[in-house]
Amino acid sequence: MSQFFSEKFRTLEAYVPGEQPQDRSYVKLNTNESPYSPSPAVREAAAREAQQLQLYSDPEVKPLRAALARVYDVKPENICCGNGSDELLNFIFLAYGDRDHGFIFPDLTYGFYPVFCRLNAVPYEEKPLRPDFTVDLSDYLHDPRHVVIANPNAPTGIALGLADIETLAASDPDRLVVIDEAYVDFGAESAVALTKKYPNLLVVSTFSKSRSLAGGRLGFVIADAALIRDLETIRYSTNPYNVNRMSMAAGVAALSEQEYYTANCQKVARTREDAAAKLEALGFTVLPSKSNFLFARPPRISGGELYLSLKARGVLVRHFSKPRIADWVRITVGSPEQMDILLRETEAILRENV
Amino acid sequence: MSQFFSEKFRTLEAYVPGEQPQDRSYVKLNTNESPYSPSPAVREAAAREAQQLQLYSDPEVKPLRAALARVYDVKPENICCGNGSDELLNFIFLAYGDRDHGFIFPDLTYGFYPVFCRLNAVPYEEKPLRPDFTVDLSDYLHDPRHVVIANPNAPTGIALGLADIETLAASDPDRLVVIDEAYVDFGAESAVALTKKYPNLLVVSTFSKSRSLAGGRLGFVIADAALIRDLETIRYSTNPYNVNRMSMAAGVAALSEQEYYTANCQKVARTREDAAAKLEALGFTVLPSKSNFLFARPPRISGGELYLSLKARGVLVRHFSKPRIADWVRITVGSPEQMDILLRETEAILRENV
Repeated sequence: MSQFFSEKFRTLEAYVPGEQPQDRSYVKLNTNESPYSPSPAVREAAAREAQQLQLYSDPEVKPLRAALARVYDVKPENICCGNGSDELLNFIFLAYGDRDHGFIFPDLTYGFYPVFCRLNAVPYEEKPLRPDFTVDLSDYLHDPRHVVIANPNAPTGIALGLADIETLAASDPDRLVVIDEAYVDFGAESAVALTKKYPNLLVVSTFSKSRSLAGGRLGFVIADAALIRDLETIRYSTNPYNVNRMSMAAGVAALSEQEYYTANCQKVARTREDAAAKLEALGFTVLPSKSNFLFARPPRISGGELYLSLKARGVLVRHFSKPRIADWVRITVGSPEQMDILLRETEAILRENV
Repeated sequence: MSQFFSEKFRTLEAYVPGEQPQDRSYVKLNTNESPYSPSPAVREAAAREAQQLQLYSDPEVKPLRAALARVYDVKPENICCGNGSDELLNFIFLAYGDRDHGFIFPDLTYGFYPVFCRLNAVPYEEKPLRPDFTVDLSDYLHDPRHVVIANPNAPTGIALGLADIETLAASDPDRLVVIDEAYVDFGAESAVALTKKYPNLLVVSTFSKSRSLAGGRLGFVIADAALIRDLETIRYSTNPYNVNRMSMAAGVAALSEQEYYTANCQKVARTREDAAAKLEALGFTVLPSKSNFLFARPPRISGGELYLSLKARGVLVRHFSKPRIADWVRITVGSPEQMDILLRETEAILRENV
C-alpha cells in the first residue's frame, strides 16, 4: 500500500477469484466455466471484428441490446451491458447503496457482494441460510434494505422458485430486489419477465457460463427503464466504451444460436445429475443443484483435504474456508470425461483415507 | 432517473463521448482513432483467443504485463492493466481522492476528469491554461493537491517537456502527479522512465491511439509498485477479470511489432504537419500539436458552424461548446486521403462564407 491510498480503503480486502494457475494444466473444475467452446459463428464474429479494432466500439451497445431484447422479450431501454456482470453488480451497489440505503444477502453466497459493499461504503448484513442451506424468505420480507439474491445461489447451487422471487419483489415497492442469474440457464427459472411488473426488480446475468464466454467478459442487467437510466449514468461516468468490439460481436452471434447453447446447458445438467449420483454413491452429501456446479461434502475427510489431494492429482475444485462450509467443496460440472477423472481421483483419495 | 438512485448522484452529469453515428458512413475525424488497422499478427492473436472464450482470462494479466515491462523497461509489478485507460483513470481518482485530497488540472483538458471527480465525490479545481493554451507550471508547483496533466494535452495537442514533468513530480513528494499519455507516441516525450525516480508519479497510457486498438479497450498505468498495489486492490474489488482474453492477446502481439506502430505514428505526424500547413494557408489558426489531432480555429466562421457544415458534407470533427474554445474544432489526423477530403470540404465551406 502507498502512503497516498485513501484512508477509506486502507482495510479493504479485495475479492479473491478462483485460482487460475499457469504452471501446469489441470482438469479445471474450480471457476464454473463451461466445458464447451463458443459456437463457430461466435468465433467468426469475434475474429471479424478484430479487423477493425482501430475504431471505438459503439458506446450505446446497440446491436447487443437489440439482440438481447429479442431473446428476452424486453425493450433495449430495459438493458444495460457491461464488461462482465461483476462490473454491473458494482454499478448497482454504487448507484443504490449509501449510508442510508444498505443491502442484505445470504451469509453464504457470491463472495463479491460484501466486497462491493465495503468498496462503496454501503452498510450490509448477511442473513444466515437455514441449516439445509436454503434461503429463509421471511428474513427478507420485512426489512427496508435492498436485497441481493443469487438464483441459483453460489456456492450451494440451490434455486428459489419464481413465486418466491415475486413475493420478495412485491413485498415492498420501496426497496430493490436484485436477482443475480449467472447460473439460471442450467435449470432454474428466470425472473426477467417479472421486471415488467415490478419496477424495483433488477435481474443481472452473464454470458460467462451458459454461453461459454467467460473470457470475453459480457454481462447485462434487465430492469425497468428508469433503473437502467441510472446504471447508464454510472456507466457513462466511468467507462462508456466498456464493452469491446469483439465481445459485443461474440454476444450478438451467441444470441442467434440459442439451440446450440440450450443443448450445452442440457448436457451440463445431465452430467451434473450423473456426477451427483456417483458422488452420493461414494458417500458424499450433495446439495440439490440447479446450476453448473455441485456443492458436496466428502465422507471421512474435510473439504480442505479433498481440495488439496485433488490438486496434487491435477484436478482443481474450489474450497472456501468459511466456518459453515469448510467441510465442503464446490465442483464445476465439466465434460463427462472431466467428471470421470474427478470421480476416479476422488475415489482413490477416499480409499487412502479409510 | 429512478426513485432509488442515490442522493449523491442525482445531479451527476455523465461524460459525453464523441458521437459514433451508425446512420451513415462519415469521414470520421472526431474521436482520435488511428486511420491504420491493427497489424496482421494482432488480428490473428485475437482470433486465436476467440477459440477458447469459455475460459476466464488471467486475472493477473501476466503475459501483457510481461510484454509491457519489456517494452517500457520497467517490472511487471510496476504495471496495472485496464479495460481502456478510462477505467484506470477512474481507479486513480477513486483510490487517491477523497474529501481531504482533491485534484487540480487544466480548465481545458480531457473532459472526463471532472466527471470522475464528481462521481467519486473528490473536490477539484480547474487551473486556466494561459491565453496561448499552454500550461502555466507555476499554477501546480505550490499546491498540495494531486495533479492530473494530459501530455500532450487534449483538445489542444500541446505537449509539456520532460523537464517540466520532472519539476512537477519533484516539487512535492507528498502529492501525486498523474500524467495521461494517451497521445504521447505521436511526438511528445514519455515520463515512464521518471516513475523509477519519483514514487509519486503515475503514467497512464492506452493502446487505443498509437496501437490502433480503440475498439479492443486496453489501457495501463506505470508507477511505483506501492501505487500499483493500491490500484490492484481497487481492480480486485470491482472486476478482477477486467481485461478479456482477446484484447490481452491483441496487446501482447501489438507490443511485439513496435516497428509497425512506430511507422504508423510517423505517418500520422507527417500527415498532421502537412494538414496543419494547409489549414493555415486557408486562414486557420492551428495550435502546435504533438498528438494525432489538430486544434484549429477557422477564419470568418465559428467552430460550431464549421462542425455542422462539415457534418452535413459527411465529415465528422469534434466541437466543444465551452466558452474559451467555442470558436475552435478538434480534427483527428486521419489518412492522407481522409485529410484531403476534410481540406476540400473545408475550403468549399469557407468559400460559401466569404
